[in-house]
Amino acid sequence: DAFAVLDPRPIFALAEQLFPGRGADLSNAWRTRQFDYQWLRVLTGRYADFWQATDDALVVSAETLKLDLTPDRRKQLMNAHLELKAWPDVLPALQALKSMGLRLAPLSNLTPTMLEAGIKSAGLEGIFEQVLSTDRIRTYKPDPRAYQMAIDAFRLKREEILFVPSSGWDAAGAKSFGYTTFWVNRLNLPAEKLGVTPDAIGQTLADLVDFVKAAR
Amino acid sequence: DAFAVLDPRPIFALAEQLFPGRGADLSNAWRTRQFDYQWLRVLTGRYADFWQATDDALVVSAETLKLDLTPDRRKQLMNAHLELKAWPDVLPALQALKSMGLRLAPLSNLTPTMLEAGIKSAGLEGIFEQVLSTDRIRTYKPDPRAYQMAIDAFRLKREEILFVPSSGWDAAGAKSFGYTTFWVNRLNLPAEKLGVTPDAIGQTLADLVDFVKAAR
Repeated sequence: DAFAVLDPRPIFALAEQLFPGRGADLSNAWRTRQFDYQWLRVLTGRYADFWQATDDALVVSAETLKLDLTPDRRKQLMNAHLELKAWPDVLPALQALKSMGLRLAPLSNLTPTMLEAGIKSAGLEGIFEQVLSTDRIRTYKPDPRAYQMAIDAFRLKREEILFVPSSGWDAAGAKSFGYTTFWVNRLNLPAEKLGVTPDAIGQTLADLVDFVKAAR
Repeated sequence: DAFAVLDPRPIFALAEQLFPGRGADLSNAWRTRQFDYQWLRVLTGRYADFWQATDDALVVSAETLKLDLTPDRRKQLMNAHLELKAWPDVLPALQALKSMGLRLAPLSNLTPTMLEAGIKSAGLEGIFEQVLSTDRIRTYKPDPRAYQMAIDAFRLKREEILFVPSSGWDAAGAKSFGYTTFWVNRLNLPAEKLGVTPDAIGQTLADLVDFVKAAR
């Protein structure tokens, strides 16, 4: 997943800077609604892309919290999604995985534009063999069709793929689909109860490298 | 929807009583995850019923917030779902609608057991012609198959049905499906941005009665 690689915390810091004392409330409401909107749009068959869902979620969250989201603030918060950096453990870990012969790709709900901007902004050009946005097939994880994209793009078998989610729900979705799943649980959150559990859990991509080494 | 009729606030009050000063945090995390779990289970094809999803959501929310959810507290919070009362405007409004010849049914994600308990606890026995739980077909609103249940149960055309949701997402789902939709927006929340808008919005079922009268 892209957020196993990209650090979203500057977005939340900007929310606090723009709305002092209310940043956490806004970030929580926004992030929750952002993913809810994606799932609801899959369920209702009214797809809108991640950028649109994120912008819609921001507007409604600010309305709900009665915050004055000016056009400039809205633009700043949205554009922060195009300037994300990598978590500090990412580059050496991805290079190590690549040198071990693994073929790498983000499989993300982000739009292709957002993914390309993130890869560039995070200094990860040339690392990924593929960049898989679920926008290409107009759906979102955890729709099984979204996870299927990696099988189709790499022409690999399901059991040859290791999926690395950053969210508990994505860990459940990937494992449910049948991928070996290593959850990068950076915030040390409890596992979501969705009927399946990931194969392994770590806190950083360095832990992932250890997991891959041990599995070989 | 059942929560257009049943008042969930005693559940949130109990959360505050059991966890003084943290009740709102728990209620918000729980309610969000409760619905997320339903949608995620539809999307991943791992159905679990509303009771299970609600219990799972409670356990994980308490873990996330580091609250000591003892077995007794867990049982109290869950059982509060079986003892809900009607909002004060409900009984006269439903009687008025019934006397106007409307055939009434809740179409809810709640399990049949929860719906029957709610109808009894709220003193609404004999009001509804049908009690439609999406558990019968093992899915959840806003899956279109869930909304379809009313058409099948009443043998009516889509345009002959008026749907009355209590949540913004359900308003979008019902309208997206094609029902005339009157959103009982009891908390005066902003509309969710999901590509469609309900036909009308009110704050109580008394407003709904006025809407139906005006439409005749």
